[in-house]
Amino acid sequence: MSVSSRLRELGIVLPTPPQAVAAYVPATLSGSLCYTAGQLPLKDGVLMAQGRLGVDLDTDTAYQAARQCALNAISVAAQAVGDVDRLSRVIKVVGFVQSGDHYHDQPKVVNGASELLQEVFGDAGRHARSAVGTNALPLNAAVEVEVIFEVKQ
Amino acid sequence: MSVSSRLRELGIVLPTPPQAVAAYVPATLSGSLCYTAGQLPLKDGVLMAQGRLGVDLDTDTAYQAARQCALNAISVAAQAVGDVDRLSRVIKVVGFVQSGDHYHDQPKVVNGASELLQEVFGDAGRHARSAVGTNALPLNAAVEVEVIFEVKQ
Amino acid sequence: MSVSSRLRELGIVLPTPPQAVAAYVPATLSGSLCYTAGQLPLKDGVLMAQGRLGVDLDTDTAYQAARQCALNAISVAAQAVGDVDRLSRVIKVVGFVQSGDHYHDQPKVVNGASELLQEVFGDAGRHARSAVGTNALPLNAAVEVEVIFEVKQ
Repeated sequence: MSVSSRLRELGIVLPTPPQAVAAYVPATLSGSLCYTAGQLPLKDGVLMAQGRLGVDLDTDTAYQAARQCALNAISVAAQAVGDVDRLSRVIKVVGFVQSGDHYHDQPKVVNGASELLQEVFGDAGRHARSAVGTNALPLNAAVEVEVIFEVKQ
Repeated sequence: MSVSSRLRELGIVLPTPPQAVAAYVPATLSGSLCYTAGQLPLKDGVLMAQGRLGVDLDTDTAYQAARQCALNAISVAAQAVGDVDRLSRVIKVVGFVQSGDHYHDQPKVVNGASELLQEVFGDAGRHARSAVGTNALPLNAAVEVEVIFEVKQ
Repeated sequence: MSVSSRLRELGIVLPTPPQAVAAYVPATLSGSLCYTAGQLPLKDGVLMAQGRLGVDLDTDTAYQAARQCALNAISVAAQAVGDVDRLSRVIKVVGFVQSGDHYHDQPKVVNGASELLQEVFGDAGRHARSAVGTNALPLNAAVEVEVIFEVKQ
C-alpha cells in the first residue's frame, strides 16, 4: 500500500510543512537519502509542548508532541522530494528530549515519533534510533526529532 | 585480515545483539551504509555503568562502558547485514556522555568506543566522531553510542 | 563559481585543519558523502568561546564561535577529499550549544555556522539542520558543529 493511501486510511492529513526557523532548509536530498532538519512539535504554528520532562511536563504529553514532530518530518521530506509516495523507507531517527537531570524515560517519549512512522510506513517504517535527553531545546520545546528517509529513484 | 579473524585474535566474543528497548530496530541498512540505533552499555542484559560523569561516576568506568557500547554496535550491525565480515569500515560515531554541568572530558570517555573499533577494524576503523555531553540518558546510562558502518556489497 | 573562488572573493583563508583531539580522524569519505567529526571553535589552537549560553556567555560571541566551527569543518573535509572544490553541497549540519537550563536560542547560535556555509557555497550551502542544547561539551567549548558534505565523484 502506498504511503498516501495509508495516510488516508489512518485519517491523517499531513501538516503544512513548517518553515525553517533559521538559516537552513527543512530537508535535503542526496542520492537516495532525504535528511530532515530537526523538527519541533509545531502544530498550526504553535508548539504543542514546552518544558522539561520530569520537571514540568509528563511523558504522555511529550509522546504526543514527538508524534507531531514525526508528522512534520514526513511533511517536509515529502515537500523536498515532491511526492510523499517517493518516501520508501525510514532509516534513522534521532530524538532529543528536553529533560530534568533525573528523567530517564526518553525512549517512551520518542516512541511517539517511532510508532507514528510505523503506522504510516508499515514494515518500511522500522528504523534505527537514538533517544537522548538534553537540558535545553530551541523555543523551550519538549522534543526535537530528525529523520533520514530512503527515497525511490 | 577479516573482522572475524581479528575478533578471534583479540579474544573478543561479540555479545548477543541487544534488543531495541522501544519501538524501533537495532540497525538498518541503506545502500552501502548500516546505521545502528544508539547503543547503551548493556552486558548480559545489565547496564555496566549508570550515573553522571563528574558527579557519581569516573572516566575510567565510563570508558569501559563506551567500549561495551561499541561491541554492541558491531553485534547489531553484524546481525543486520548477516555477517560481521560484510562490515568493511567505520564511518561515523556519535557518543553521548551523561555528564554533570562541569565535566568536559567526554572525548576520553568516547575513546572507549573509538579504540575498540580501531582494534577490531584496524585502519578501516578510523572514523569521524562527535562526543557531546548531556544531562540525562535513557535508563540513567552513563553513555550512548551510535555508529555508521560501511558495508561490502 | 567554485568554492575556492568564492573563498577568495570573501577574503576567507581556511584554517589549518584542526587535529582530532582523541582516537578518531577529522573526516571520512563514503560514497558521495563526507562526514566531519564534531568541530570545536578552535582558532590557531585556542578555543574562541568557552562557557554556557545564558549563564556566562552571550549569543553573539557563540555565533562567531559557530562560524569558526564551520570554517574548521570545511577545512577538515577539504583535507579528507583532497581539494575544497570537490565539496559540492552541504547536506546536513548538527549544532550542539552548551547552554544553561533556561537558554533556548540555540538556532541563533548555530546560524553562525549555517550562514558561513551559505556564504561560501551559495545555494549549494542550504542544508538541513538540527540545533540542540546540551549542559556540557568537551573542553568547556560553547558550541560543537558536525557537517555532512556531498562530494563530486
